[in-house]
Amino acid sequence: MSSPVGDQKVVRLYPPSYDIRVETTDIPKIEHPDDAIVKIKLAGLCGSDLHTYRGTEAVTQPFICGHEFVGHVVALGASFHAGASGRPLLYSTLQIGDKVVSPFTVSCGECHFCRIGFTSRCEGSRLFGTATTAGGQAQYVRVPRAGGTLYRLSDIGSDTCGAGEINKETIANLADSSLLLLCDILPTGVFAAFQALNHPKLLPITSALSYPYSSGPANIASQEFYLTPQDTTLTIAVIGLGPVGLCATVSLIDMLESRGLIYRIVAVDPTDSRRNKMAVIYSKLSDKQDQFAVASIEEAKDIVKTWTDGVGCNAVLEVVGNNSALALSYELVRPFGCISSVGVHGEPHVPFRGRELYDKNVSMEFGRCPVRAMFPMALGILLRRQDVFGAVGGEISLVEKIVSIDDAKEYYDLFHTGKCGKILFDPWM
Amino acid sequence: MSSPVGDQKVVRLYPPSYDIRVETTDIPKIEHPDDAIVKIKLAGLCGSDLHTYRGTEAVTQPFICGHEFVGHVVALGASFHAGASGRPLLYSTLQIGDKVVSPFTVSCGECHFCRIGFTSRCEGSRLFGTATTAGGQAQYVRVPRAGGTLYRLSDIGSDTCGAGEINKETIANLADSSLLLLCDILPTGVFAAFQALNHPKLLPITSALSYPYSSGPANIASQEFYLTPQDTTLTIAVIGLGPVGLCATVSLIDMLESRGLIYRIVAVDPTDSRRNKMAVIYSKLSDKQDQFAVASIEEAKDIVKTWTDGVGCNAVLEVVGNNSALALSYELVRPFGCISSVGVHGEPHVPFRGRELYDKNVSMEFGRCPVRAMFPMALGILLRRQDVFGAVGGEISLVEKIVSIDDAKEYYDLFHTGKCGKILFDPWM
Repeated sequence: MSSPVGDQKVVRLYPPSYDIRVETTDIPKIEHPDDAIVKIKLAGLCGSDLHTYRGTEAVTQPFICGHEFVGHVVALGASFHAGASGRPLLYSTLQIGDKVVSPFTVSCGECHFCRIGFTSRCEGSRLFGTATTAGGQAQYVRVPRAGGTLYRLSDIGSDTCGAGEINKETIANLADSSLLLLCDILPTGVFAAFQALNHPKLLPITSALSYPYSSGPANIASQEFYLTPQDTTLTIAVIGLGPVGLCATVSLIDMLESRGLIYRIVAVDPTDSRRNKMAVIYSKLSDKQDQFAVASIEEAKDIVKTWTDGVGCNAVLEVVGNNSALALSYELVRPFGCISSVGVHGEPHVPFRGRELYDKNVSMEFGRCPVRAMFPMALGILLRRQDVFGAVGGEISLVEKIVSIDDAKEYYDLFHTGKCGKILFDPWM
Repeated sequence: MSSPVGDQKVVRLYPPSYDIRVETTDIPKIEHPDDAIVKIKLAGLCGSDLHTYRGTEAVTQPFICGHEFVGHVVALGASFHAGASGRPLLYSTLQIGDKVVSPFTVSCGECHFCRIGFTSRCEGSRLFGTATTAGGQAQYVRVPRAGGTLYRLSDIGSDTCGAGEINKETIANLADSSLLLLCDILPTGVFAAFQALNHPKLLPITSALSYPYSSGPANIASQEFYLTPQDTTLTIAVIGLGPVGLCATVSLIDMLESRGLIYRIVAVDPTDSRRNKMAVIYSKLSDKQDQFAVASIEEAKDIVKTWTDGVGCNAVLEVVGNNSALALSYELVRPFGCISSVGVHGEPHVPFRGRELYDKNVSMEFGRCPVRAMFPMALGILLRRQDVFGAVGGEISLVEKIVSIDDAKEYYDLFHTGKCGKILFDPWM
């Protein structure tokens, strides 16, 4: 089981910044028995690629970019088919030719964090598209710990968490451009929504059981408290309507509607075009226009005040990653509310005083989505919301265009300057 | 239903600080139909009384101190027995002569926050022992919104959350000094432990289901992940071993053992005498000495490192309320761990960089315990752990001494200088 040999095209970033080159280099080889080589069909250009492109994250040596990719297995290391018991199932079952999607980080599937589902903090975690791990904006990519990292599309359906009964033919028919959303942005949006809706401080609202009965272990309703329909209306803000924010909002609506919960959502972004896109997407998802609003930052404060008599939001999904967004999250959240932050934050201290957090009984969730673990739930939402997640181009699509990898330099610049939306590279076009 | 008339003894604090006077003043009267007048049996001196005593919280006018009290109802406002339907039950049932315990804040029982169990953020919340609301270090106290605020001891037993079948005679036999722990410090400790153990990021460990299956809505075990006994061992730190920290630790042990969970606890405090007391208490509760350690701050870092191969704690209970404790919490917690903070924090910004919180996927819970809602669970623990919570004086008791209210000035000073532990005032001694 050896790799294909020869040359391939790749996208490389050269330090310190803005220097994107499409180059020819060797096709990667199996270096470790757990490796797989994947032939790329499509690779995404993601907002977080811009951190290194702009030099806001220091780069000291050239590397192959990209952490979102879909493709087929073309070579496997010796661990595969060795029948090693106790190892992740893919080491026994993955075949050359299988179609796979990869999360944006390597996860071994075998350490404590992977076993319990916190795959983004795998003890051997590595981010694709960095100096240590070549990325997917290429014709071929080497996937370390591939039996833990990859998803084989033909396996899906055995796992029903949130996805219901999945028809394998339906999955086989999903466009590659749609599957690519599973590498990062859709699971990250799902995670933002899921950890807010399942937070114990929201359970009294969603379960109609008062705290602490809402959290168990014995879910016994108190005879002393009584809940009204008004008590069980959720008010939620989403801050940031880039691609991940759109995914978070659609995921949130999917979860709320599938559970029959009463909700009001305000989707916040300072940019007109992003708000407009969100509004059009919502109009395709639901006809309950009075429970959904897009808003600028100042409008959002007023809307939440009016909707909740000044009480605030039960939860805020923070999908931006800076201190302005965190400060707004605090301002919008109600006492005993939850801030679910998936934004990638930088060096500054967070803008909260201890007294403020105490006085409002704030709950906060920070950090990177465990994509590998969230995959089945994200796939369910991808399938149910193909009207949004299935399209390329057009007013509601998250993906604006599929372009040749040869044009990478041009599209990095257009994306960086806000002149285009999410771009996918076809390395064979 | 009029109040008793005449004079009473009270403890007053005069601004700016340290000026405690035992004075004679009028017995309080019913001022609002929802009021009750309670004749005090015992009133507590609590660590948070020292904030105003020391002037670290500004005081502009004299007030009657104290937010922990147990007593009997001696007068009721017109709302009681008026048969008002839809109001909290006590408005129909509370009788003169009933024995009651009060949480340290007023909660109406009728606003949204009270209805869903977040009683510490009642829309009309008031803290006893402040300029707006006379406290319980007195012979009599006026309790506003008494039908929502008070607990009647004879009612207990109808509510089984965590307390199991409660024998009313057992409750009737509880010493007042033990019941007084229910006003603040025991529920606050219970809350610290409960919100950590029931946090979604700990559920994979306690349920042996990997994330996100551990959080539902469909609790279906993934076929891909497999958990080992090592994965389901909880490592938890408690930072701060004052009275609330001791309550938090005992509550945590009670919950862990009653649920049959495998655990290791490190209980952290810089003060020798506090650590020693905690160690003696643990030796009374359990013979599993290898899974419990008391530690100074530096020792705690080493212990957690050794116990967890450098991974860190699943949860940290922060029961101090300053930035050193928060920084240590961050240092000790593992990726996807939970910091449950019940410490009362001040004006400084919290000592966390955004990047740190993102990189460790930290979850944080802040704020004031909803004592009124936590009461049944706290009562269950109080009853099961009478060996710790039933005693006055002695090496494991949380209450050091019951003294006459006449000696309040002396004992405020002794408590402030660390020369005595928790003191209760008997206003009739």
